Amino acid sequence: MNKATLLREMFKKRDLMVFVGAHNGMGAKLIERAGFDGVWASGLEISASYGVPDASLISMYQFLEVARSMNEVINIPIVADCDTGHGNAINVMYMVKRYEEAGIAAVVIEEKKFPKDNSLLAGGRQELLRVEEFVGKIEAAKAAQNNADFMVIARVEALIAGWGQEEAQMRAHQYADAGADAIFIHSKSKDPQEIIEFVNHWDQDVPLVVVPTTYPTLREQEIKELGKVKMVIYANHGLRASIRAMETVFNRIGKDGGIYDLDELIVPLNHVFELQGVPQVKENERKFIR
Amino acid sequence: MNKATLLREMFKKRDLMVFVGAHNGMGAKLIERAGFDGVWASGLEISASYGVPDASLISMYQFLEVARSMNEVINIPIVADCDTGHGNAINVMYMVKRYEEAGIAAVVIEEKKFPKDNSLLAGGRQELLRVEEFVGKIEAAKAAQNNADFMVIARVEALIAGWGQEEAQMRAHQYADAGADAIFIHSKSKDPQEIIEFVNHWDQDVPLVVVPTTYPTLREQEIKELGKVKMVIYANHGLRASIRAMETVFNRIGKDGGIYDLDELIVPLNHVFELQGVPQVKENERKFIR
Amino acid sequence: MNKATLLREMFKKRDLMVFVGAHNGMGAKLIERAGFDGVWASGLEISASYGVPDASLISMYQFLEVARSMNEVINIPIVADCDTGHGNAINVMYMVKRYEEAGIAAVVIEEKKFPKDNSLLAGGRQELLRVEEFVGKIEAAKAAQNNADFMVIARVEALIAGWGQEEAQMRAHQYADAGADAIFIHSKSKDPQEIIEFVNHWDQDVPLVVVPTTYPTLREQEIKELGKVKMVIYANHGLRASIRAMETVFNRIGKDGGIYDLDELIVPLNHVFELQGVPQVKENERKFIR
Amino acid sequence: MNKATLLREMFKKRDLMVFVGAHNGMGAKLIERAGFDGVWASGLEISASYGVPDASLISMYQFLEVARSMNEVINIPIVADCDTGHGNAINVMYMVKRYEEAGIAAVVIEEKKFPKDNSLLAGGRQELLRVEEFVGKIEAAKAAQNNADFMVIARVEALIAGWGQEEAQMRAHQYADAGADAIFIHSKSKDPQEIIEFVNHWDQDVPLVVVPTTYPTLREQEIKELGKVKMVIYANHGLRASIRAMETVFNRIGKDGGIYDLDELIVPLNHVFELQGVPQVKENERKFIR
Repeated sequence: MNKATLLREMFKKRDLMVFVGAHNGMGAKLIERAGFDGVWASGLEISASYGVPDASLISMYQFLEVARSMNEVINIPIVADCDTGHGNAINVMYMVKRYEEAGIAAVVIEEKKFPKDNSLLAGGRQELLRVEEFVGKIEAAKAAQNNADFMVIARVEALIAGWGQEEAQMRAHQYADAGADAIFIHSKSKDPQEIIEFVNHWDQDVPLVVVPTTYPTLREQEIKELGKVKMVIYANHGLRASIRAMETVFNRIGKDGGIYDLDELIVPLNHVFELQGVPQVKENERKFIR
Repeated sequence: MNKATLLREMFKKRDLMVFVGAHNGMGAKLIERAGFDGVWASGLEISASYGVPDASLISMYQFLEVARSMNEVINIPIVADCDTGHGNAINVMYMVKRYEEAGIAAVVIEEKKFPKDNSLLAGGRQELLRVEEFVGKIEAAKAAQNNADFMVIARVEALIAGWGQEEAQMRAHQYADAGADAIFIHSKSKDPQEIIEFVNHWDQDVPLVVVPTTYPTLREQEIKELGKVKMVIYANHGLRASIRAMETVFNRIGKDGGIYDLDELIVPLNHVFELQGVPQVKENERKFIR
Repeated sequence: MNKATLLREMFKKRDLMVFVGAHNGMGAKLIERAGFDGVWASGLEISASYGVPDASLISMYQFLEVARSMNEVINIPIVADCDTGHGNAINVMYMVKRYEEAGIAAVVIEEKKFPKDNSLLAGGRQELLRVEEFVGKIEAAKAAQNNADFMVIARVEALIAGWGQEEAQMRAHQYADAGADAIFIHSKSKDPQEIIEFVNHWDQDVPLVVVPTTYPTLREQEIKELGKVKMVIYANHGLRASIRAMETVFNRIGKDGGIYDLDELIVPLNHVFELQGVPQVKENERKFIR
Repeated sequence: MNKATLLREMFKKRDLMVFVGAHNGMGAKLIERAGFDGVWASGLEISASYGVPDASLISMYQFLEVARSMNEVINIPIVADCDTGHGNAINVMYMVKRYEEAGIAAVVIEEKKFPKDNSLLAGGRQELLRVEEFVGKIEAAKAAQNNADFMVIARVEALIAGWGQEEAQMRAHQYADAGADAIFIHSKSKDPQEIIEFVNHWDQDVPLVVVPTTYPTLREQEIKELGKVKMVIYANHGLRASIRAMETVFNRIGKDGGIYDLDELIVPLNHVFELQGVPQVKENERKFIR
């Protein structure tokens, strides 16, 4: 089954889906193995993996290539963080076609101006488009897609930008009316109350997506009880765990002057081989190499 | 200073250099910050980051792009794992030009047949080229480079393939005579004795490179005392630490039904921003955005 | 309709299909507009467009990206020239998955050794695999594809390599038995008799593909009368026309010391804009930019 | 010699340089062979070669990769058309580093808003930045470059946007004061008088670049006599000749039902092989393949 259709079905049938952020195929495979519902092709993770800020610096093509290479090695769907759509409504249309062709199940576009800045960055530039401009981008995205099941998710940044609940609701309503298949409501508050308030006031059928990076105390059980939220994204914890692990192991090697005492910090090489799919390749070698 | 020249100087002046494997810009930056001498653009790490076997599946272009993107964000030199050179002597020449243009300091090519298999894989295909064929590839690589300081390192796989010390010495001599700037002597023995024996018999001026993945008990201090070895590469420990960390954090999230208890497993978001170079970008925004 | 399915249908319903070689999206669009049935993603054209020999130098990834970018802008199917499959049977499996995911309708793999040399090059290396080795590659390709309609076409180079009609027939039969969806029978003879003889002796249901680059006197009408041939590919004439045109216009500019007398050599800029799809974008701007 | 230094020298010593637009390595090679001074990595040509509008749709990364692949196969310098710099001053800094690392001699950035539209398109969006905003982008570009010889050329679009001579002069002065190494003054007038007037009023030492696409009657001899103009770019004639040639040959094939009568429209295959550099590869095969 096409993954856009698969995700559409999951939105219908599932209570709350859990998606987890990744920046390469290995991360995506680990997310699938851990039993999560899907992968978030995180703009922050991908930018950070390149060692550059999450500020529209690496190109749409590069984000797309990462999403594509992840999709090639997993069976669960990918929702792609597409920032502003990398320009205006025309850029959005071009981008939607490319992501859909790549087998990505859904794209998220946000109402910020290009070039964007990371939403959670203290002192970041958080300038919003006029509502009607972003409505045009959503309509453009929906007009560009080919498979009716492909989803365009509108990311509301009004709370991030400090414009308040009322503005956030108004914008979310307009985006839902424009055809958005879900509303990704973002907050950088440390208190989940901001999101809870938004969810409680949401009176549309269009489902919500939340990302509790700054308010981790909000658990899945509570999110389910809120209703209306169909997807929670843990957006960047794999990256942050990786960085911590690499810093630890590199410091240990430097201090030790060798690699003789790393066993509890690293997986064995055979585990890497297994994750890479070596057993299947060996079986194929036996079948097909003559 | 050009990084090929920098590495050439380091080979002259330094006792033992320590290089560490990476598969993206973030890993390369962490290696630089931890104080190591350079980055190993590891074929295993890069393949594994794509979630595919280390068996000449992803393309030369993709390996090159990863090496290039790492080089863009660090100041220390990169030595690139170039497998077999991705074909014959002509492929090697094409590849050497591309890596040199990308600012990579040195390439390592190995005497295995294309498509290769990972050297440390139990049951892997470890077929070697005829000596004269690989000599031709080294001469081709040296003829292709533009800057005289760029280094071509010959990777001897005779011990890996089980062909014995004598064969390994003979091959290493021939490759040194052919112009190899260093000999990367590889072993999959769990006992460092195999490498120690090779080093002790090495009677040429051409320096040696060792990779103690399977014999981690060999420490830098002992390697220095052996003499002749100028570089030790810890080839894949960052990747293996990352995988372990991601598995741990993903399992924890699954079990907890939330991200409320991850603090000791992950770095704070601000640390990610700092590693991405956000402070410099913010300073540039103040200077140049008007 | 999926393009693999579309091509499969065309093979069933059509008499003789005409495919034409291209190396970028513009060329592909011009082929579609001229009314041909499909595009040949020519290895020679793509290599030559990079300015490098057709000898497995640029990477599989780069060939794939060109095919993908062409497919994005046309509605007719693409048959991709995939050389040797870029390695062994495992490389073929990896490659088939990537081409199929990219929406390419069919791949052609040839029985030469990697790295290949152009088939029509005087003095080129034309070494063939053992039959059973290539049979393994075909079976691997068929096992790797997902959509049953995707086609794997086996390219017989025995005539190119000078191994004679009998060998060519034997090999073609084995490849058909192994599951090849069509046989691409290649010849570098200036006389079409070599191909005609092959076709006349072909006694299988598996259709044939011919490429009359060196025997241009064989016309479509005659090919139809031969029967059994379902596709003719004009593999590189767009490239060769382009080179001739660029040489002419560049020499004229050099001689004239200006561009004041080029009208009969070039299309107007408005025609370029129209081919780029500017009118549709302008319409979308009116609809979606607010 | 580094190509940035080479171009810097050419600007000092040469009277009037002639650069010609290309979109791939083959085109770049033909320009070099025809004796021109350098290659223009044309945004219009590259976009058109992908079959998409010249409206910031394909990514910076893709433009860069085309420029890089052209630079790899020629010895003359490349000046790259970098549109708006693909965003704000920070995007410009990121881009300048990438182009400089790729060996490109100079970049041209224009004072239009992102996403841009082609300058010569009737009805195109031609919105200009505030002067101080573009001054910031030029200063950012100059601050980002590493080699002092690398050139940043400011493209003045005020005449294109219909803002008049006075505005164009004012802007060009400000950009020269901000550190622009040359001023690319663009016009879409069919009469060269608009450009002649601008040149005649130009009273700074910073050299000028002109692109007579719409006013082809202005010949090199007259441009030299104007003085101050150091570079003329024939921006898209190779592309336009290619399109015309491909249309002609494809229509001929369609009409003829074969390729038997194309000789006067195409170059022989041997000429393609020679342009690809096959003879050098064959010589290298003899030397290095054993």
